[in-house]
Amino acid sequence: MGRVIVECVPNFSEGRSESVVGQIVKAIASVPSVAVLGSTMDVDHHRSVVTFAGTPKSVQEAALLGVAEAVSLIDLKQHRGVHPRLGAADVVPFVPVKGITLRDCAELAVEVGERIWRRLGVPVFLYEAAARRADRVRLEHVRQGGFETLVKKVLADPASAPDIGGPALHPSAGACIVGARKLLIAYNINLDSSDINIAKTIARSIRASSGGFPHVKALGFALQSRGIVQVSMNLVDFEATPLHVVQEAVRVQAENLGIGILGGEIIGFMPQKVLEQAAAYYLKFESFDSNMVLERQLEQRLGD
Amino acid sequence: MGRVIVECVPNFSEGRSESVVGQIVKAIASVPSVAVLGSTMDVDHHRSVVTFAGTPKSVQEAALLGVAEAVSLIDLKQHRGVHPRLGAADVVPFVPVKGITLRDCAELAVEVGERIWRRLGVPVFLYEAAARRADRVRLEHVRQGGFETLVKKVLADPASAPDIGGPALHPSAGACIVGARKLLIAYNINLDSSDINIAKTIARSIRASSGGFPHVKALGFALQSRGIVQVSMNLVDFEATPLHVVQEAVRVQAENLGIGILGGEIIGFMPQKVLEQAAAYYLKFESFDSNMVLERQLEQRLGD
Repeated sequence: MGRVIVECVPNFSEGRSESVVGQIVKAIASVPSVAVLGSTMDVDHHRSVVTFAGTPKSVQEAALLGVAEAVSLIDLKQHRGVHPRLGAADVVPFVPVKGITLRDCAELAVEVGERIWRRLGVPVFLYEAAARRADRVRLEHVRQGGFETLVKKVLADPASAPDIGGPALHPSAGACIVGARKLLIAYNINLDSSDINIAKTIARSIRASSGGFPHVKALGFALQSRGIVQVSMNLVDFEATPLHVVQEAVRVQAENLGIGILGGEIIGFMPQKVLEQAAAYYLKFESFDSNMVLERQLEQRLGD
Repeated sequence: MGRVIVECVPNFSEGRSESVVGQIVKAIASVPSVAVLGSTMDVDHHRSVVTFAGTPKSVQEAALLGVAEAVSLIDLKQHRGVHPRLGAADVVPFVPVKGITLRDCAELAVEVGERIWRRLGVPVFLYEAAARRADRVRLEHVRQGGFETLVKKVLADPASAPDIGGPALHPSAGACIVGARKLLIAYNINLDSSDINIAKTIARSIRASSGGFPHVKALGFALQSRGIVQVSMNLVDFEATPLHVVQEAVRVQAENLGIGILGGEIIGFMPQKVLEQAAAYYLKFESFDSNMVLERQLEQRLGD
């Protein structure tokens, strides 16, 4: 039947020391049946992101080891970056990839949150699909004010207390925001133009926050090195708003503005289903389901 | 790294007795690590096709067991059908699916051919990628004249002798045509028209034999039950001539004739790569390779 696969994409408050990030990645990669798919560091944000995947239990174990390493190596009191953060291990989302639901991933997140508090003494806020309160669903609401504000607020205001442990934050590692969310696709479309206003206009017209497509975040950027502009997107629910629908909208808008599309790019990875959605749409199959794909059949029938 | 997977699609000269076809399928399915993906019977052709897949050794074993069952149950001397045939187990192609080349499959085919002769006394012609003679590459050339003609010709003309065993054919089971070929995609496009001439015109314009796309076979059919016509295709090398290219050509031709497309359908299965080719084309990725697909990454890194 193929394995159950969960992805985890923790964000750590260290983006300058390769040694520190390297030790965190090493701790994560030490767990059998876990594959580190990538890690990035950002000097300005002073932040790093590690992407790894595996079976639920191995991913939980690896997340805990990564958080433990960050808690022992990172001192938030010394940390200054442009990106808001609440903890040394700032955000730990669990993402369903295969054979598991978002709800299941929320349960994995709660279990890891409890272990983070018990073993490391770092209190935990639960967000997105793992949130216990409506005002903690959105990450930006949980993180509001950051470590420096929350460290006092949790003691003064019981309503601000963490969901697990606390109420005091950890003196050097703050708190950890643990949760579950759907798989996010980072998708950019490069335009044959150097006019940043065109990229911004298109981004505004397609993003959810400006009344565009649901589950789409978009910004217009200039790519200085190539002399072109880009619509940079996050598709936070590609099953509800498929990539090809967004691509068509950007293409039509660009055409209306007299601009061509140079091409699309995926930052990181996209799930198989994106291809299936696009193929079913463009190839006009009378009916399409993934069982028409030979490899899916073999996976199901041979456990390949 | 994922398993090596071979597909085998033997054609048997029995399309009327469910019991006989059932026994053949049962013999094939008895081999561990083999998955029977489907089987079809055709009364008019008096012929059945079984599709199965698995690891190379298990598929070889299952092919041999299926052929043995057909040889013991089918008497070609009693067999009359509209489809040309040379043997009880008429054609046994091995098809590379994953982690294996066409050349490797040709070697598997030769090994199975030798075992068919040694164990069952049925001589073997080798065709397509396993052919030892240029005039035996194409199935229709090997099968020319059928059992009734070949049974005498192999004795009279040494140049007509089988590649393995013989020269006399097996008295009731004839000969077996064993080989290796690329994966074939059976792809139909239904047209919003009841005019068979339109389907035939489009089929003629796209098929290789009339000067259309290489590696495309196409015919125009009427679907009586739906009152529409269909362009019915075999794509015999979808990597060289992708499905989306053929679909675009049919769509444009139909449009030029004032006809809409109702939709496409796949008979059986299509490989993952068809989706990747189509997505890369329609989604206009600046660069595309299958490592951008999360599931491919996991397969490679977790052996999932």
